[in-house]
Amino acid sequence: MSQQEIPYKIYLSEDEMPKYWYNMRADMKKKPAPLLNPQTLKPVTAEELEHVFCKELVKQELDNDTREIPIPQEILDFYKMYRPSPLTRAYCLEKKLNTPAKIYYKFEGNNTSGSHKLNSAIAQAYYAKNQGLKGVTTETGAGQWGTALSMACAYLGLDCHVYMVKVSYEQKPFRREVMRTYGAQVTPSPSETTNVGRQILKEHPGTGGSLGCAISEAVEDATTHEGYRYVLGSVLSQVLLHQSVIGLECKTAMDKYGIKPDVIIGCAGGGSNLGGLISPFMGEKLRGEKDYQFIAVEPASCPSLTRGVYAYDYCDTGRVCPLQKMYTLGSGFIPAPNHAGGLRYHGMSGVLSELYDQGLIEARSVVQTDVFEAAEAFARVEGILPAPESSHAIKVAMDEAIKCRETGEEKTILFGLTGTGYFDMYAYEKFNDGKMTDFIPSDEDLKKSFETLPKV
Amino acid sequence: MSQQEIPYKIYLSEDEMPKYWYNMRADMKKKPAPLLNPQTLKPVTAEELEHVFCKELVKQELDNDTREIPIPQEILDFYKMYRPSPLTRAYCLEKKLNTPAKIYYKFEGNNTSGSHKLNSAIAQAYYAKNQGLKGVTTETGAGQWGTALSMACAYLGLDCHVYMVKVSYEQKPFRREVMRTYGAQVTPSPSETTNVGRQILKEHPGTGGSLGCAISEAVEDATTHEGYRYVLGSVLSQVLLHQSVIGLECKTAMDKYGIKPDVIIGCAGGGSNLGGLISPFMGEKLRGEKDYQFIAVEPASCPSLTRGVYAYDYCDTGRVCPLQKMYTLGSGFIPAPNHAGGLRYHGMSGVLSELYDQGLIEARSVVQTDVFEAAEAFARVEGILPAPESSHAIKVAMDEAIKCRETGEEKTILFGLTGTGYFDMYAYEKFNDGKMTDFIPSDEDLKKSFETLPKV
Repeated sequence: MSQQEIPYKIYLSEDEMPKYWYNMRADMKKKPAPLLNPQTLKPVTAEELEHVFCKELVKQELDNDTREIPIPQEILDFYKMYRPSPLTRAYCLEKKLNTPAKIYYKFEGNNTSGSHKLNSAIAQAYYAKNQGLKGVTTETGAGQWGTALSMACAYLGLDCHVYMVKVSYEQKPFRREVMRTYGAQVTPSPSETTNVGRQILKEHPGTGGSLGCAISEAVEDATTHEGYRYVLGSVLSQVLLHQSVIGLECKTAMDKYGIKPDVIIGCAGGGSNLGGLISPFMGEKLRGEKDYQFIAVEPASCPSLTRGVYAYDYCDTGRVCPLQKMYTLGSGFIPAPNHAGGLRYHGMSGVLSELYDQGLIEARSVVQTDVFEAAEAFARVEGILPAPESSHAIKVAMDEAIKCRETGEEKTILFGLTGTGYFDMYAYEKFNDGKMTDFIPSDEDLKKSFETLPKV
Repeated sequence: MSQQEIPYKIYLSEDEMPKYWYNMRADMKKKPAPLLNPQTLKPVTAEELEHVFCKELVKQELDNDTREIPIPQEILDFYKMYRPSPLTRAYCLEKKLNTPAKIYYKFEGNNTSGSHKLNSAIAQAYYAKNQGLKGVTTETGAGQWGTALSMACAYLGLDCHVYMVKVSYEQKPFRREVMRTYGAQVTPSPSETTNVGRQILKEHPGTGGSLGCAISEAVEDATTHEGYRYVLGSVLSQVLLHQSVIGLECKTAMDKYGIKPDVIIGCAGGGSNLGGLISPFMGEKLRGEKDYQFIAVEPASCPSLTRGVYAYDYCDTGRVCPLQKMYTLGSGFIPAPNHAGGLRYHGMSGVLSELYDQGLIEARSVVQTDVFEAAEAFARVEGILPAPESSHAIKVAMDEAIKCRETGEEKTILFGLTGTGYFDMYAYEKFNDGKMTDFIPSDEDLKKSFETLPKV
């Protein structure tokens, strides 16, 4: 089919939507290293994990072998409320960049939570409901994950306790209100409602909180209340599994029009979006069927892949969650206040870390002023106001397209547009006013945070 | 086709999208009354209007006869960036209400401006560009129209001056930043940049401004700067014409599945959304081909259809725009602070007013606490966080569906979901905190504001 005939947006019909999630681990010859129990530092057992997480999700977390996992009907029905998400041909951006490259993006922001997070939130909430639980607990920083989980819980009639980093709770009151509108109980963290919260408040009165602290409170809430479990929006292998729906839809849509991407680009914080987007393509690469170039884009202020080490580390600063082997800056790393809150994580998905270590994925880091410049240019021609996180991928996709203009190559570029920036207007305001600055940790900073790595 | 086979979302393919706008006036036996020149009180001429508005738009405004007006290719291409918008079967809402009614909604919030306003913004910007103008000026209250126009102007490379009611400018900084991100010049109104603004500031120092004042400033800006024209987001017949794309898409999608709505419901402020949604259906009714029940929903705090009079009135409190015969509360009416800013208009589209006067449309008014209750219930099951304006239609659609539960009727209900509530979280917060109150003007209030009607 000629390029002319490709529509602006490729939508799949509901019967073309994926009926299963794809588990990349099944096709990896060298599997990700096992999770370790934070007390014993031995591989964690299913039984140990089931105190914190739902039974079925533990099974998915530990399953390195099953290639296709059927999506339950109730989740498929929920997906139909906002999926399939459009795969868009960026005709206007191509024209603006005067590039022979063909640019596509998969837009995951077309739902009220504003991002791809909902794909895993509904899955995790469903398994909790199915297990007969009363509710789930979680933490949220930027707020996308908390919003997604609140929506999923409202739909299923589950309680939802969200511990929101206090500084975000105060700076992002609208995010908080969206969650409350969906019936969630939102608590600023650290709070007086948990032991760990009270302890932290005692030691650091007036603290604005941190993701690590919020995780610890959410885990304590789940493990001390009958009928509750803790859920997490990224990093875990189960989350990448659920997010494979992004890549699967994408591949079906591209196959339909005979399009094969040369380069696939995604932003990477904990890895949920990138891992989901690349899944079926990486599967083909792992099985030796086709080749693709994959690029993970991270903020220069929090460069876990490009400047981190591959080692066992704590997933949370509270050190209550299992340890994971991953690219990490050390759980003691305190990221500078980059506006892409969803990318301010010291580590990276274990699956993606292993793929990166095997040389199957590349990584680039970018500074936030460049990211916002790309975001604004994109918004003006493509209409969508992108989230700062997503704009990391936009920046590198534009870089690649500009290279094509210089070399004359007609590459097909695909990137993940994970969400909208409606709740990030403070950041845009800073950029519009010329007051945004960049942060790059010094080697000295990193050396210090590497010292927080556990001796495993 | 059985109801079971109807998908959650009906998307049209790009070649099924409308190629023309439909002009309801062509099928009206009794046409809307002509606009009057505010100085002479005589029917306004095209030449007079062309000082303020673009030439082609004046033509569309005065055209009561051409049934189908082709949509220029550049506008069609822009529409493809965010259209066709989904027509959604509200399966989850039906289940929650336990109703035999079949509920559909046409969702226009799937674009960054967050509402249907973009459909007319791109049209008006296009004709300005085509006329060789440098830019356009406008006012905005709640901010949806200003955002839409900023996006359209960014795309076409036109200057965009937005006069934003000062109280909104201060209370909705995020809306302002979205417009700035799209390159618009946003000025709080009243401002020191126009004569009328300076005059008002002198008479009312410290005023928070009003839509009427912002209109006057925008018109002065357009008429005193070479290469600029003024554009307006609702009320005008040209706007209803452009918005007919909503109804045309809707009808094509419903026809495809053999669905005929019994009741069609929309919120009505200036009338742009309702007029657009009902267009092709009203056309069939006007031509005696089919019958439908149409319901306009307005806030009880600003009840122009249900408690207004049908008379010539000023469209703006500044009295610089042409007079229109419409259902109105008088241009001196000061609506109470209802959170649905987009519905706080003293008058109504002349076309809709005439149709209402002929008994072809019904109207209902609802109080805002009921509206937010409906909005929250809708959000929890259907996922989308609705704008307060749109939620007026949700409220009445739910009422109708509940009636069906009681009578056992299997009515097909269609309503317009005009936009998202991302920038209305202050209002949701008030509702969540139980602090929202209702406002209903007294007969005495209305008597007073009717006194501001011109003697024509």
